[in-house]
Amino acid sequence: MAQARRTTEVMEAIRRKLATRALTPGERLPSIRRFAAVMGVSPSTIVEAYDRLVAEGVIRSQPGSGFYVAGVPPSLDLHLPEPQRERDVDPLWVSRQSLDTGRDVVKPGCGWLPPDWMPQAAMRRALRQLARGPDAILTDYGSSLGPVNLRRILARQFAEEGLEISPESILLATSASQSIDLICRSLLRPGDTVLVDDPCYFNFQALLRVYKARIVSVPFTPMGPDLAQFAQALTTHHPRLYITNSALHNPTGGTMTAQTAHRLLKLAEAHGLTIIEDDTFAALEPDLSPRLATLDGLERVIRIGSFSKTLSASIRCGYIAGPPDLIAALTDLQVATNFGGPSPVSTEIVHATLSDGSYRKHVEGIRRRLTRIRKDTSARLVAMGITPWLMPRGGFYLWCALPQRRDASEIARAAMRRNVVLAPGNIFSPAQTAAGFMRFNVSQMHDPAWEVVAQAMNTPPA
Amino acid sequence: MAQARRTTEVMEAIRRKLATRALTPGERLPSIRRFAAVMGVSPSTIVEAYDRLVAEGVIRSQPGSGFYVAGVPPSLDLHLPEPQRERDVDPLWVSRQSLDTGRDVVKPGCGWLPPDWMPQAAMRRALRQLARGPDAILTDYGSSLGPVNLRRILARQFAEEGLEISPESILLATSASQSIDLICRSLLRPGDTVLVDDPCYFNFQALLRVYKARIVSVPFTPMGPDLAQFAQALTTHHPRLYITNSALHNPTGGTMTAQTAHRLLKLAEAHGLTIIEDDTFAALEPDLSPRLATLDGLERVIRIGSFSKTLSASIRCGYIAGPPDLIAALTDLQVATNFGGPSPVSTEIVHATLSDGSYRKHVEGIRRRLTRIRKDTSARLVAMGITPWLMPRGGFYLWCALPQRRDASEIARAAMRRNVVLAPGNIFSPAQTAAGFMRFNVSQMHDPAWEVVAQAMNTPPA
Repeated sequence: MAQARRTTEVMEAIRRKLATRALTPGERLPSIRRFAAVMGVSPSTIVEAYDRLVAEGVIRSQPGSGFYVAGVPPSLDLHLPEPQRERDVDPLWVSRQSLDTGRDVVKPGCGWLPPDWMPQAAMRRALRQLARGPDAILTDYGSSLGPVNLRRILARQFAEEGLEISPESILLATSASQSIDLICRSLLRPGDTVLVDDPCYFNFQALLRVYKARIVSVPFTPMGPDLAQFAQALTTHHPRLYITNSALHNPTGGTMTAQTAHRLLKLAEAHGLTIIEDDTFAALEPDLSPRLATLDGLERVIRIGSFSKTLSASIRCGYIAGPPDLIAALTDLQVATNFGGPSPVSTEIVHATLSDGSYRKHVEGIRRRLTRIRKDTSARLVAMGITPWLMPRGGFYLWCALPQRRDASEIARAAMRRNVVLAPGNIFSPAQTAAGFMRFNVSQMHDPAWEVVAQAMNTPPA
Repeated sequence: MAQARRTTEVMEAIRRKLATRALTPGERLPSIRRFAAVMGVSPSTIVEAYDRLVAEGVIRSQPGSGFYVAGVPPSLDLHLPEPQRERDVDPLWVSRQSLDTGRDVVKPGCGWLPPDWMPQAAMRRALRQLARGPDAILTDYGSSLGPVNLRRILARQFAEEGLEISPESILLATSASQSIDLICRSLLRPGDTVLVDDPCYFNFQALLRVYKARIVSVPFTPMGPDLAQFAQALTTHHPRLYITNSALHNPTGGTMTAQTAHRLLKLAEAHGLTIIEDDTFAALEPDLSPRLATLDGLERVIRIGSFSKTLSASIRCGYIAGPPDLIAALTDLQVATNFGGPSPVSTEIVHATLSDGSYRKHVEGIRRRLTRIRKDTSARLVAMGITPWLMPRGGFYLWCALPQRRDASEIARAAMRRNVVLAPGNIFSPAQTAAGFMRFNVSQMHDPAWEVVAQAMNTPPA
């Protein structure tokens, strides 16, 4: 009994060392004899504890050499829900594959930039500054709208783009997805119809399924949604809401023209349609494109976004800009459902990083790097018979047609077995008309991604 | 002479920044070194200029942190939606008053401990450690369940309490409120009835209103819910869900007895009732009380909680422990609605702070301090004719009967005009039977709270 307790204590001691990074992956553990002395237990207790940690996969034994911390960091270890790999290729498929597989998996299907593209130095400065900051920011709840210093930065940025609003028209939330969720909760009633683009960001569909909303999609053209079909859909289906990205549309990278935006807003007004404009990728634009929210002045357009693509996805901070009465309702809703918005620790890091002198240059650097890598990746894909639907003005996506009616979902399933996450077309297509398309994230095309794609192209279709 | 002129120039530069709002109240001034470089003067000139501005009251020095523009911090300034102060005393009233008023407002009505009660040193260590941590934690999305190292700590803690579950039965969320929200989304259908205690935590009601659920309440006794009425409610209303705190019930501080827990679970089983056990205050218990989740083994009880009461409310991290199939469904739901759970930055801070050798002692210290302050506060209230309904075993709440049928909502409104947030009884009572009760947070009874309460007691009832 006492023996069991001592073993547990030794295991705990090792786990603490791992937790505090006193021991890191690949490092050798203290020798059995030495650690027995340190812990004041018998060597056999240490042997027992190490053996159990080996069984858990926390450490590994190297015969003749000793015990070593296992290779994969704890957050990526073997406790992941493995069956998820074999689930249906539905709108949640790529999300779960991208989030829940480890660093041994390559992810050209995911929706973010690699860590070494992000403003690491500025964030680390922000963390050190926060470590010396006021007590209250570290431990108190934040205000219900989110800190005004960050909302003021957003308001200034919107003003530069021609949208003059007060910081009180901005509510901070924990992500762009949660922003859309709050708006849907406030506006959608059971049975409502929601209009989306075809193709569109797969999580719009996953979210709308939660609401059991009727999803109607309109083909997206390189200039924005097909307006004739858009008008038809308004007349036929009376949608309550339209969700879109006008700048750097996900997955196509298309950008709405000024004329499309203007006409679309006139249609929306005539039919009492509310629009959510998801600006998540806007910071990656080389220059400003027409924005529905700016044209409309936030009358029937609600602008949402986040800092996940150019600052950090880890800090979990998004925003909603909308009419004051809607913002007031959403603020209450966020208190009721989450007792407030993003972490004040997070918003402080975002504010400090955005205010850091290096941030603007950092974003410009990302844009330049993406321009180059988009071109190279496109050329290499074209050589394999994979054709970009258009060459986007910015961002990290290439939406591509596969040759010879190859089925993207089948290729993605096969790729997953080789530890490569791909994003097959139909997860973006409510009408399921994109089976022959694939979305590639040009910043994540590391080996063996190219090899897997090349092999799939040489394999004759099933 | 030249030195004096340069000092004046630096002061002028700061004043210009204030005039143009390039610097706003509460904002941190440039560091001495950096500003010296910018202005092309010596650091001592900057020090001199800053000191003089401090003397003028234009800026203030925060030792160890830097210099800040004086006046109200930005998050607390006049841009706050003032009308909120006059809104109805509904279940959201105390939340909004507590979150959105500044530090000049005293908040015995709020649900948290003051910042100087929290593990500031350990959190600052965690932040410094994170500033040296891996890139991916700072900028990547986290896994969909949340990091396994933190889930493992929770699983071990549950095991110590007699609830043996795997870390895969635990989903991390952004708060206890959001945990309940996710469960409600998964389980509730329109028109469903939900059972709560009377009184109960006001945000349960705010949240259930979002679902347009029918709320039925059962009187709470010092031993748990009144079982006769509980049984009656099950038969009459067929509720889908019961939400409660069995340890340190909010607002009463009551604790369910083992017998009540056992009988309640038998009733739940007979009627197919699911239970959410909100364990948010459990860490403040002096010793372990009977827990529904432990008795039941997570068959029909879902355990939720957070770290907001003893670690930090700012980091926004909660958890759900439940049956595997429910956890799988909730995980997908959280990806669809928030693209994942809490910030990896936050979970890393929580994990490091919980693993810090000082944490257990910190919590013990809070408990001891609360025991003393509960006793003192109770005595002082009793002397005013305000009677605690029971003396809680732990926690920071005293649920008190006011003398002579005084109306708690009226007192709370009057207190708000004097910058004191109180928590009047009826916001906790679905049946509106607690007009003569008030919940006091003993850790937040700073002046002028006592003065306001004393004055209200001397005022004859309207």
